[in-house]
Amino acid sequence: MEMRTLRREDFDYIINMEPRWRDMDGLRHINHATYLSYLETVRIQYMEKLGYDVNDWDRKRSSILASMKIDYHQQSSFPNQYEIGARVIRIGNKSFDILNALFEQNNSVPVVTGVFTVVGFDYAAQETIPVSERIKKEYRPF
Amino acid sequence: MEMRTLRREDFDYIINMEPRWRDMDGLRHINHATYLSYLETVRIQYMEKLGYDVNDWDRKRSSILASMKIDYHQQSSFPNQYEIGARVIRIGNKSFDILNALFEQNNSVPVVTGVFTVVGFDYAAQETIPVSERIKKEYRPF
Amino acid sequence: MEMRTLRREDFDYIINMEPRWRDMDGLRHINHATYLSYLETVRIQYMEKLGYDVNDWDRKRSSILASMKIDYHQQSSFPNQYEIGARVIRIGNKSFDILNALFEQNNSVPVVTGVFTVVGFDYAAQETIPVSERIKKEYRPF
Amino acid sequence: MEMRTLRREDFDYIINMEPRWRDMDGLRHINHATYLSYLETVRIQYMEKLGYDVNDWDRKRSSILASMKIDYHQQSSFPNQYEIGARVIRIGNKSFDILNALFEQNNSVPVVTGVFTVVGFDYAAQETIPVSERIKKEYRPF
Repeated sequence: MEMRTLRREDFDYIINMEPRWRDMDGLRHINHATYLSYLETVRIQYMEKLGYDVNDWDRKRSSILASMKIDYHQQSSFPNQYEIGARVIRIGNKSFDILNALFEQNNSVPVVTGVFTVVGFDYAAQETIPVSERIKKEYRPF
Repeated sequence: MEMRTLRREDFDYIINMEPRWRDMDGLRHINHATYLSYLETVRIQYMEKLGYDVNDWDRKRSSILASMKIDYHQQSSFPNQYEIGARVIRIGNKSFDILNALFEQNNSVPVVTGVFTVVGFDYAAQETIPVSERIKKEYRPF
Repeated sequence: MEMRTLRREDFDYIINMEPRWRDMDGLRHINHATYLSYLETVRIQYMEKLGYDVNDWDRKRSSILASMKIDYHQQSSFPNQYEIGARVIRIGNKSFDILNALFEQNNSVPVVTGVFTVVGFDYAAQETIPVSERIKKEYRPF
Repeated sequence: MEMRTLRREDFDYIINMEPRWRDMDGLRHINHATYLSYLETVRIQYMEKLGYDVNDWDRKRSSILASMKIDYHQQSSFPNQYEIGARVIRIGNKSFDILNALFEQNNSVPVVTGVFTVVGFDYAAQETIPVSERIKKEYRPF
């Protein structure tokens, strides 16, 4: 999949996000790791939409990040207004992949794209669990 | 000044801010230091309103934080919607004080309040400079 | 108390800390809020020394930050080696004050100093509790 | 390459790193994005060893992160002592790959591993530049 050619239209679920001044590092662009906190927030909001409770800290029916592949296409800085898309592009028995792309306003090329492999996880038992039916319904491959 | 009794009406300048999931720490409330990044962003947006250019990295006519006094009145967590007020409550020759208060929606008592003593500073020369006339106009004591 | 004249010798408890590159902000010095994460870590290590368990997440016998007064005396940047002192300078029934000072190597003047007012707190019951006898023993006023 | 089977012995260059309390998130483990700030610091220290000056902010002979692939093998929490290895495992004309692995003490399986594709970059001209001869000497494929 060619990440750089992803566009807003490739996503049904889009969240707005504003950077903070501190999100810039010494190079005066948004730090590479800070984008991941934006995307994490979007994943969690997306999960809330699917019926998960972010404040259910028992986390018996939760998930854990197993791996991610991130591509940085452009630099970006504060101030800004971002739109971040999320899409479930793979479903397995115990894991699924979420694709994210982050866009600046008036710029069709994404700043950052990422694929996150998330595993169903019971934090209390510390063991993997099957992907829920609700998430399976979100599956929308390319 | 009784910080806990500050209200939105005490501020002319108010900015909205949304927490991110990562802003919570292991105690599952917004971390005390993270609020300071919210308030920093508000100070910078306020300075932009007063004619400063956040991207003027020469910073010959900038300012530096000398001290701050922060009071934590309530705990707060993600997700949330904050309103943050800013007000110049003291003006000196080379420094001034900005008062900030952060409010949750539907809650009149502030979560956090702070007074920031900011000194006019030329980063190129690394020396203090007088407070600008533009900032002096913002002076609004209690 | 004149914070700028604090010296290493004013502290019995000193912890080493190393900055990370990301601790610098767009001004290429350590960000004002990031120092607070250093000092937070030192407070927690200090509490561990006094018998508290950082991984006791029930937090029935814990504490919460009520306020802080921070003074920034010098700028500092990555890479660096810091020494951070901690000292209990006030004891009340339900609260106490910890003084912190952060020093660069080969520099007797502190970079940052702070006084943190900490309240005994039961997170489960969400109510204040008396200061423990163990902390009272640490009291060492100026 | 099987990331989970990487061991300390696979690395010549190893740096120690200590987590801070704030590095934990609401799940009370080190946040996935925070590991990237550890690895960033190690990359920068590694570049310093190769003759780059971290404080050369002109950055005419610098580099920029193009992409990364991160695998999370275990959870980890504060307090801890980490060892982080770095190794150049691919060299191209204008880019190279650094492999990182982060280990807890007394644990041979890595907590996190990552491959970072870094592009030679002139920040002043905002254009890619060839990989330096000095970095090419570090090339050590599997």
